[in-house]
Amino acid sequence: MYLESIAAPQDIRKIPVEQLPVLAQEVRQRILEVTSRTGGHIASSFGAVELIIALHYCLDVPRDKILFDVGHQAYAHKILTGRNRAFDTLRQYGGISGFPSREESEYDTCFCGHSSTSVSAALGIACARDAAQPPAPFKVVAVIGDGSLSGGLCFEGLNNAGHLKKDILVVLNTNELSIAPNVGAISTYLNKLISLPIYNRFRASFDKFLESRVPRGRRLKAMAAKFEEGLKGLFIPGMLFEELGFRYFGPLDGHDLQKLVPTLRNILNVKGPRLVHVITKKGKGYAPAEQDPVRFHSAGPFDIGSGAPVRSSGPAAATYTEVFSNAVVRLAARDTRVVAVTAAMPEGTGLDKFRDAYPQRFYDVGIAEQHAVCFAGGLALAGMRPVVAIYSTFFQRAVDQVFVDVALQKAPVVFCLDRAGIVGEDGVTHQGVFDIPVLRSVPDLFIMAPQDGRELEAMLEFAISLNRPCVIRYPKSIAPVIDEGHGPLKAGCVEPLRSGRDYAIIALGSMVAAALAADDLLRREGICGTCVNARFVKPLDADALKDALRQIGPSAPVFTVEDGVIDAGFGSAVCETLGRTIERMGLPDQFIVHGKRQLLLEKYGLDAAGIALRIKKALKKDGKG
Amino acid sequence: MYLESIAAPQDIRKIPVEQLPVLAQEVRQRILEVTSRTGGHIASSFGAVELIIALHYCLDVPRDKILFDVGHQAYAHKILTGRNRAFDTLRQYGGISGFPSREESEYDTCFCGHSSTSVSAALGIACARDAAQPPAPFKVVAVIGDGSLSGGLCFEGLNNAGHLKKDILVVLNTNELSIAPNVGAISTYLNKLISLPIYNRFRASFDKFLESRVPRGRRLKAMAAKFEEGLKGLFIPGMLFEELGFRYFGPLDGHDLQKLVPTLRNILNVKGPRLVHVITKKGKGYAPAEQDPVRFHSAGPFDIGSGAPVRSSGPAAATYTEVFSNAVVRLAARDTRVVAVTAAMPEGTGLDKFRDAYPQRFYDVGIAEQHAVCFAGGLALAGMRPVVAIYSTFFQRAVDQVFVDVALQKAPVVFCLDRAGIVGEDGVTHQGVFDIPVLRSVPDLFIMAPQDGRELEAMLEFAISLNRPCVIRYPKSIAPVIDEGHGPLKAGCVEPLRSGRDYAIIALGSMVAAALAADDLLRREGICGTCVNARFVKPLDADALKDALRQIGPSAPVFTVEDGVIDAGFGSAVCETLGRTIERMGLPDQFIVHGKRQLLLEKYGLDAAGIALRIKKALKKDGKG
Repeated sequence: MYLESIAAPQDIRKIPVEQLPVLAQEVRQRILEVTSRTGGHIASSFGAVELIIALHYCLDVPRDKILFDVGHQAYAHKILTGRNRAFDTLRQYGGISGFPSREESEYDTCFCGHSSTSVSAALGIACARDAAQPPAPFKVVAVIGDGSLSGGLCFEGLNNAGHLKKDILVVLNTNELSIAPNVGAISTYLNKLISLPIYNRFRASFDKFLESRVPRGRRLKAMAAKFEEGLKGLFIPGMLFEELGFRYFGPLDGHDLQKLVPTLRNILNVKGPRLVHVITKKGKGYAPAEQDPVRFHSAGPFDIGSGAPVRSSGPAAATYTEVFSNAVVRLAARDTRVVAVTAAMPEGTGLDKFRDAYPQRFYDVGIAEQHAVCFAGGLALAGMRPVVAIYSTFFQRAVDQVFVDVALQKAPVVFCLDRAGIVGEDGVTHQGVFDIPVLRSVPDLFIMAPQDGRELEAMLEFAISLNRPCVIRYPKSIAPVIDEGHGPLKAGCVEPLRSGRDYAIIALGSMVAAALAADDLLRREGICGTCVNARFVKPLDADALKDALRQIGPSAPVFTVEDGVIDAGFGSAVCETLGRTIERMGLPDQFIVHGKRQLLLEKYGLDAAGIALRIKKALKKDGKG
Repeated sequence: MYLESIAAPQDIRKIPVEQLPVLAQEVRQRILEVTSRTGGHIASSFGAVELIIALHYCLDVPRDKILFDVGHQAYAHKILTGRNRAFDTLRQYGGISGFPSREESEYDTCFCGHSSTSVSAALGIACARDAAQPPAPFKVVAVIGDGSLSGGLCFEGLNNAGHLKKDILVVLNTNELSIAPNVGAISTYLNKLISLPIYNRFRASFDKFLESRVPRGRRLKAMAAKFEEGLKGLFIPGMLFEELGFRYFGPLDGHDLQKLVPTLRNILNVKGPRLVHVITKKGKGYAPAEQDPVRFHSAGPFDIGSGAPVRSSGPAAATYTEVFSNAVVRLAARDTRVVAVTAAMPEGTGLDKFRDAYPQRFYDVGIAEQHAVCFAGGLALAGMRPVVAIYSTFFQRAVDQVFVDVALQKAPVVFCLDRAGIVGEDGVTHQGVFDIPVLRSVPDLFIMAPQDGRELEAMLEFAISLNRPCVIRYPKSIAPVIDEGHGPLKAGCVEPLRSGRDYAIIALGSMVAAALAADDLLRREGICGTCVNARFVKPLDADALKDALRQIGPSAPVFTVEDGVIDAGFGSAVCETLGRTIERMGLPDQFIVHGKRQLLLEKYGLDAAGIALRIKKALKKDGKG
């Protein structure tokens, strides 16, 4: 048992290279044991075990810096950097984060979670390193997957790094051919790199060169360089990276530690921007994950033996995502203008059903949110009705395109923001709590949130029928079923659900169910509220809003409640519209850590009990409780 | 005189090809005549004259679609598409926009102004075209400069287009070698394409092939394809684009109409994604602009004979940009941690002085705002104090990176948002009026705005001294000189400037001078206000704010005024902080067109007279006027 003895990465370096596969096996077993209980990003973490061991074997972290792109592949890194015991609490409130976290460990260079950032951040660190006086040299390594490579930010980073010629190493970890989702020209290119025999032939001799670098005379070097420059298009793979100013090495087998360690060590000693291309298998070492890496990309608890998901008992109610998934297919059947766009999330957004039903009208653009939005703008300008489904947190990538390339053009694009609000276990980088403030100032944009699944369907139909850009936001949760309401949608208008004199609450989206449940609690104590389903964040029809509040007493308090940050949020919009003070419930002005969605909602007073308590407190203060 | 006879692009096609240079000369003369009076984007518009004539000669716009990336090179397009007469009003309020505008003309496919969007939008249009029933084929052309190529969005678009294999043509318009600002590996690559003799040799024969395409037998074609595939790294330039799935043609002389027209015609008939590389000279045909394309990129009125700027009389007061430019150099002298980052705007942001003073601490990352922010995050995490200067409108590109890669990391980056507020003549795509709502929900971010130049210096020093991310926003205008105030900065605290019982106004940044001038007007009528310099948008210290308002009468109205949209803006933050109603002055919830900054401020009541009027109206309504 090596794992028990590893308190820090330097302990890995005490193990003989030939024994490292044993450590890899132990790490993999540990990941399996924990994630089967907690869920998590399994396929990519399994794939990166040997790579992470090899990196720690060759580097001296935290003096040297490793930046994991996205970061969900880094479980082995966590286990090997002093967090083996704590790993039991993975993704639990108060426990270990599912992504690298500066606050959690000095071994985590930065928080990550969004794609394609690692090369840029690594370059910044390298530039700062090289400017330090006195010099304090260390190595900077960005570990990035082929998915992240489709993000424009990564290209911007490579382009700048290739120009500045700083010493950084990019480890490009790509999947075996069969698994790679072929959604961009870059994917095709990478597959070619792996498979073309001419490349592989020359790669073999090139590897040999790397493994046994001997000092040579100047003339020989100059000759080699000249030869290489002239012929590299033919002989050296990775031409695309070479043109961006990187020396390309690979592809290497990312599971072969005996070869990986000496080769990485050699490459780390080369100067300038380097890219080493490593091939790994998603889910490696755990058969169910190897066979279905898509399901094991981000999975809940599962049975280790069979790999089958462990479902909680009770009838499986539909999630908002599932409702959306079915609704968009149904709407596409009767409106041929409806096309769907996803940024590498067909399963996560539920658009996989659309893809299967209407492959010709489905576009997976890869991890490229800016392009997804701009491309949808083009589709809309030429007569289509694109439905773009993106997680709220990743939609932050495309704010400028929403302003300029959609709203300004009056292009009728429907944005479906899944994972809006508290997302739960994915935590601080993934909470979808900022979309309302960020989008609320976009002129001509409609922003809606459905109280339940049925209303999500209605809103989607309504949005497609409008000739304008719309956003519909909904959380990662079961869609409640609410009997009240469901009158026809009218632009900017709230829908009153319950009347009562004592207070009023205007609830947005998933908070409607919580507000109604709070009102149920209060009515047991004789406190009757006016409950309003906001439906819209923008526009807000002031008359409809005032009408809805007509029945409350003259000094009864008015509340808003939303599943997002309060500052500049929905409640703020209601204040602006009514020109009166309001008590706003929602999330505080801070980054929200990981934990179960329901637990976090309770913590911030956004469950029925919390809302009822807040209302009672306000009434007591006013002398009415 | 051909130009007079051209009412629409089809009239161009009546001119014999060999006479097109005469038309080009007339168009150039017209651009010179108007821009010398109005100012505008001169260098790039001069460079693109022949290219635009050739495109309209080969295409049938508006049936066919041209998308100009950024769009400031499209003056010739405007002149040739029915707007020759109206071109006199270029960039004037109510006149012709300086950028393509859907509202202005059916010949303008979309609004543009931000970089790197054209390939994505063109691909969207092409996908919609190919889905139409019955089929209505037309051609889609994206015209993009080498600057735009560094934007990651462009790469995302190329990557997706190369994969989808739709018929689109990308015209890559690059500058002659000497002028190209070499800020990325891609620039180096393009320069190599142009200069390497081996490429040029093969290009010549390739051009010949294109100009005389003859039908050939299948076997010949297959052989050629095989040959090409095997040897393209050596023989065909544009490998990088080929790897992205584009057929590369060129480079061509972008001023040689005799060659451009037949070659473009041939390339337009090729199927699939194509990229034609055209070389032009910025400022072509106007010697002063050819000699100093940087100054003529975006210039004010100038003397045609000498090219010298026509300055308005009176002493030249410093702009905010100039104040920043000097201040950051001064601060860098005493703090070696200060480094500067720009996204292709060294002159526009004033960082050119920093570049000249501290070349080793200056980073121009090209048009790549996402990378600029993420890279700065890396610099800051490794001990530097990066000052990132970006225009407010372009900063919209990097919202996600501000959230995740700077604020979440608590990385001490100072963002200087130039062109915040009304920018004036550049118009609808360039107004910097959304930054406050978009950024106000970023946790831990400080947002400040200086009342004048002296305060900008103080804020910059203050921001660098803080160990946290900060934003300082300031407009494109002369920095006023205000005697009042200038006490030490304290986090989140306003600074009261004048006391008065009748009303209070809390003014942000450049609006402080306007508010004080309004108060001057009102005092002549016996109305005395409390004038407060907000200094901060975030955080807002509630006690300091309440203190500042202590002297006003109990029912005196409180106003806020800001140079940005009202919804979710600064005034909204004051409402939230005070928990009371406030009259908020600022810009309405719409896109703001072009026109002189002062004229637009007047139009929206944000000058002294407008502010005074609004205050008087409110007082009258309350029975106090």
